Amino acid sequence: MTNSTQQNSLAVSEQLQESYNAFKAKGLKLDLTRGKPSPAQLDLSNEMLSLPGSSDYVAEGATDCRNYGGLQGLAEVRRLFSGIIGAPAEQVVVGNNSSLTLMHDTVVSALLKGTCDSVTPWSKQGEIAFLCPVPGYDRHFGICQTYGIRMIPVALKEDGPDMDEVERLVAQDASIKGMWCVPKYSNPTGTIYSDAVAERLAAMKTAAPDFRLFWDNAYGVHHLTDERIEIANILELCARHGHPNRPFMFLSTSKITLAGAGLAMFAASKDNVKWLLARLTPQTIGPDKINQLRHVRFLKNEAGILQLMDRHRALIAPKFQKVLDIFNEKLAHVPDVTWTSPKGGYFISLDVPKGCAQRVVALAKEAGVALTPAGATHPYGKDTDDRTISIAPPFPELPEVAQAAEGVALCVLLAAAELRG
Amino acid sequence: MTNSTQQNSLAVSEQLQESYNAFKAKGLKLDLTRGKPSPAQLDLSNEMLSLPGSSDYVAEGATDCRNYGGLQGLAEVRRLFSGIIGAPAEQVVVGNNSSLTLMHDTVVSALLKGTCDSVTPWSKQGEIAFLCPVPGYDRHFGICQTYGIRMIPVALKEDGPDMDEVERLVAQDASIKGMWCVPKYSNPTGTIYSDAVAERLAAMKTAAPDFRLFWDNAYGVHHLTDERIEIANILELCARHGHPNRPFMFLSTSKITLAGAGLAMFAASKDNVKWLLARLTPQTIGPDKINQLRHVRFLKNEAGILQLMDRHRALIAPKFQKVLDIFNEKLAHVPDVTWTSPKGGYFISLDVPKGCAQRVVALAKEAGVALTPAGATHPYGKDTDDRTISIAPPFPELPEVAQAAEGVALCVLLAAAELRG
Repeated sequence: MTNSTQQNSLAVSEQLQESYNAFKAKGLKLDLTRGKPSPAQLDLSNEMLSLPGSSDYVAEGATDCRNYGGLQGLAEVRRLFSGIIGAPAEQVVVGNNSSLTLMHDTVVSALLKGTCDSVTPWSKQGEIAFLCPVPGYDRHFGICQTYGIRMIPVALKEDGPDMDEVERLVAQDASIKGMWCVPKYSNPTGTIYSDAVAERLAAMKTAAPDFRLFWDNAYGVHHLTDERIEIANILELCARHGHPNRPFMFLSTSKITLAGAGLAMFAASKDNVKWLLARLTPQTIGPDKINQLRHVRFLKNEAGILQLMDRHRALIAPKFQKVLDIFNEKLAHVPDVTWTSPKGGYFISLDVPKGCAQRVVALAKEAGVALTPAGATHPYGKDTDDRTISIAPPFPELPEVAQAAEGVALCVLLAAAELRG
Repeated sequence: MTNSTQQNSLAVSEQLQESYNAFKAKGLKLDLTRGKPSPAQLDLSNEMLSLPGSSDYVAEGATDCRNYGGLQGLAEVRRLFSGIIGAPAEQVVVGNNSSLTLMHDTVVSALLKGTCDSVTPWSKQGEIAFLCPVPGYDRHFGICQTYGIRMIPVALKEDGPDMDEVERLVAQDASIKGMWCVPKYSNPTGTIYSDAVAERLAAMKTAAPDFRLFWDNAYGVHHLTDERIEIANILELCARHGHPNRPFMFLSTSKITLAGAGLAMFAASKDNVKWLLARLTPQTIGPDKINQLRHVRFLKNEAGILQLMDRHRALIAPKFQKVLDIFNEKLAHVPDVTWTSPKGGYFISLDVPKGCAQRVVALAKEAGVALTPAGATHPYGKDTDDRTISIAPPFPELPEVAQAAEGVALCVLLAAAELRG
């Protein structure tokens, strides 16, 4: 570095520090942490708060939704979501308000009882492992960490997980029992698994006969563009390749209707569904069917769901665009800084220069912008490159999103400048 | 037996057989199996079906009930049930619609992670066991059976479990980790644990440091008489005797509001609550707070709950009375036939002559009266005396309850006659 560029660099640093101080002095309190819908999005479903109505409680088959029973969920809910989840209605199970619970409980059941293809429970097979595409969803990793399931990171590429690596690992290691997948608008990168990747996941040979894809299609209808992107049907693909029991598919209406009062669903092969219902039998007499009926009355049909999602998009797409515009304006020419431009989902993944992510998050926090802890997108919270930051634009109001993005950009510039020293 | 009494007995048998055939010929379809509220009982809470209303979603602390979060449940729900469950609001956790789920999940958590007093997870401590007062609730036993927890039956006496036996067993056997208790209006006998029994349960020395009472107060406010019977506060008793973490208390509104869409609750010591919340963290982002708010709006306060329970009582007490009247009329003088006259709850327990219960249930089924399988009230479904039958009067309409009770009485008489042969 010449003397004059050094001086330049110092001047830039000082200027950045001043801008940062000025931003901090505003005393803002902004939050880009969680994939949470905004109040305006929740308003879209306020009609549900007085549904089904005081004389409406009978579902198909003369089912009194107020009473006990109906372990698999109402037939009309299973039919309503059949197309979106990609499974026949009879292969769908509707639970309560959390798909995380269904994922957690299927893992726990497999640990204690084994899957329908397990010789013994997973917990009796020594140490087991899951493949974790990174960056990924911290709550998936949390389940593994809680129960001592070893997490093996695999790189998430443009079109899905690094399949050469995935195929190599599952073929040789029978302790690998599962793999977390968010196949569409993946959290936090927005990655869409290509048909070729899905086909390889369905076809690959696994050393474990009871290997499962945990196919968390959390953002199946959560488009941010005109394009309603479709992905391959993993259930059909796996069946075609002779592995009908491989996928456990999950879906939730938390980001369709009400985040805390939606419906969670599981879909899979007939044998898997039979297995899950047997596992649910000691745990519950049945899910909240009134909330299921409420959803049917409100959403009506698949077209109703897609229309509602258009209204969500109208509210959140501008927030994503605002963040992207600001990043483009402020960060486009910064070396080693990149970000994703998702076509759906709830997140933007921001990659900063190696070793900078924690510093950016700390600077942002100091300036009143809450970000998810650096590393949360990786197993054990450890992003060895300290590069990836997850940004969730939907929750704050648009002006706040803009302010927060400006703040984040400033922090990135400052951290990068500090690194160059 | 003399010749003439033999002939008498034959004549009686023939008459009984005729009555039974006539009953059967009516082609009835009656059901006394499950502890289910009737449609008229569910009607009492129909107002809930349009609550909280489309502009009512904010709970205390500016909580938007529509969104994610709030793992422990709304403060106002915890306060609303604090008195009934017998624990401070901050030591109550509100879940979704099933207390069975909370019981199941606490057992599973203890198996995989241990309690807050366990050195290692229960599943790593070799075979473990639960004490099971008999007769008892089949779904409690189902949890144990599913996970290979050995069940040790102990007799349920007039005032609760046989405490001499319980104390003897838990003192010597460290593998005994838990005990199922339905302390008030116990399923199916209606037994009320006396204060002395509660005190002994709280005070007793257990070989296992992580022993837990699974205190399922399912019928805490489900009175059938004028008397609102109170039982001892097990949480306070256990604390006083130096075993603060011993009880896990459970409560459900399934038989207060809507059977399938109620609220389940857990209450315990601060350490146990901390433990449970840690266990729930990987499983869910939070319960359905809208349904919690709905309950607060509908029930309003403890007096509101008790008033609602009075209305339930008005609907179901006559059904219990009808069964008892018919049993008194038909069975009072039959040797070895006894039944309970519960002051609350959902069941009457009918004891028939040894070796007759299965036959009675089979005869009833043939005549169109569904009864819970004989043995269901015992661990592993095995009532070695083949004596106990559980009767649930609340669900059918009063005339049907009467018909069903007549039918059951006939089957008891016939089975007893067959036995005398």
